[in-house]
Amino acid sequence: MLLAFDADDTLWHHETLFVEAGEGFRAVLRAYHDDAFIDARLHATELRNLQHFGYGVKGFVLSMIETAIELTEQRISGGEIQRIIDLGRRMLSAPIEPLAGVAMALTTLSARHELVVVTKGDLFDQEAKLARSGLGHHFAGMEVVSQKDEPTYRRLLQRRGVAPSSFVMVGNSLKSDVLPVVAIGGRAVHVPYALTWAHERVEGVSPASHGYIEVPTLADVVPIVEDWVASR
Amino acid sequence: MLLAFDADDTLWHHETLFVEAGEGFRAVLRAYHDDAFIDARLHATELRNLQHFGYGVKGFVLSMIETAIELTEQRISGGEIQRIIDLGRRMLSAPIEPLAGVAMALTTLSARHELVVVTKGDLFDQEAKLARSGLGHHFAGMEVVSQKDEPTYRRLLQRRGVAPSSFVMVGNSLKSDVLPVVAIGGRAVHVPYALTWAHERVEGVSPASHGYIEVPTLADVVPIVEDWVASR
Repeated sequence: MLLAFDADDTLWHHETLFVEAGEGFRAVLRAYHDDAFIDARLHATELRNLQHFGYGVKGFVLSMIETAIELTEQRISGGEIQRIIDLGRRMLSAPIEPLAGVAMALTTLSARHELVVVTKGDLFDQEAKLARSGLGHHFAGMEVVSQKDEPTYRRLLQRRGVAPSSFVMVGNSLKSDVLPVVAIGGRAVHVPYALTWAHERVEGVSPASHGYIEVPTLADVVPIVEDWVASR
Repeated sequence: MLLAFDADDTLWHHETLFVEAGEGFRAVLRAYHDDAFIDARLHATELRNLQHFGYGVKGFVLSMIETAIELTEQRISGGEIQRIIDLGRRMLSAPIEPLAGVAMALTTLSARHELVVVTKGDLFDQEAKLARSGLGHHFAGMEVVSQKDEPTYRRLLQRRGVAPSSFVMVGNSLKSDVLPVVAIGGRAVHVPYALTWAHERVEGVSPASHGYIEVPTLADVVPIVEDWVASR
């Protein structure tokens, strides 16, 4: 049984870093605009830049800077831009705080199964976060992928010689961690995170209709996996 | 035989993009400082930021912006910062131009061997460049790694079940593509690129003393590999 885990907001808090940086960004621009307008414009810039910058903190910082220039009609000062870059540097060096129960669950699971991390984002950032999280020793490897879709999961299983029925993916995103895995015949456990990024929401999907399991914390994954192993 | 290729400045021109962006950056700051001083400060900022930003275009752009703020004592304008971001966006969307002879050499080699790309940098950027280069179909896969050192190459071979003696790495960097591969018992071909990044230079190393082969172009790799295969 190969157990794969998403990283951001599944193993550790991550979205909170974006929320805090967003708060700092609004503070920089509050003299120029109201919060809702700043948020909407930042989100639009992010979407527009996604094809060039991809996901990750550095692209987010560049989008914040561009939004700031736009929203101030270029009146933003060098000092204010520096504050925005510093928000990014803080995100990249912030302590990586595992979610409640994660360390214990991984200790139990890694004693009996091979665990890997499968995550989108920037390879450099993700490896650094895994190291800083203190959870690295539980994992046999980390796969950083640019898309979490069916072909990606199929390639991953092929390369590792694992049948879909022996693969479990655990993550907070229905779109990236759950639905494509179920679609290729694997098993998936959804562990929702309190804050879910707008891009990642999926309407009209439920465990009953789409063949996955949903649990509140990573600790709840342990008995489910043991059940699956016992029933094989 | 597994043949692995570095990407930037081995398969396609890349450093030229940084050189052009550097020229654009100096043009933005020329009103404030002379070129040599701008270059030196940019290089210092890049080194300082490497631990947070890693390699890649987005980190480079953030370092350019920070340097611009520093060098103008925050007097840089929003419009000037936007010009710097646009330099980065141009780098990320520039056509990816294969080096002379690369397409032909890969066509010949991929007919007989499994080829992979092994590169540092940002996964999103590197996959996008491979797609834009038109060379993607020659390769069985792309491995984006955060370090190109002995442990990284060892893990790569282990995961693919390939003995070091059946592994050839081709690249323009002695430090990243050649020396660690020779050190673990693999074969390496050095194809120098005209412009070599300062971090990547290695003194006192030669093909004779360090057991690798050096050729001027990727086309010259073809007969060498065939010789190695024949002599096994």
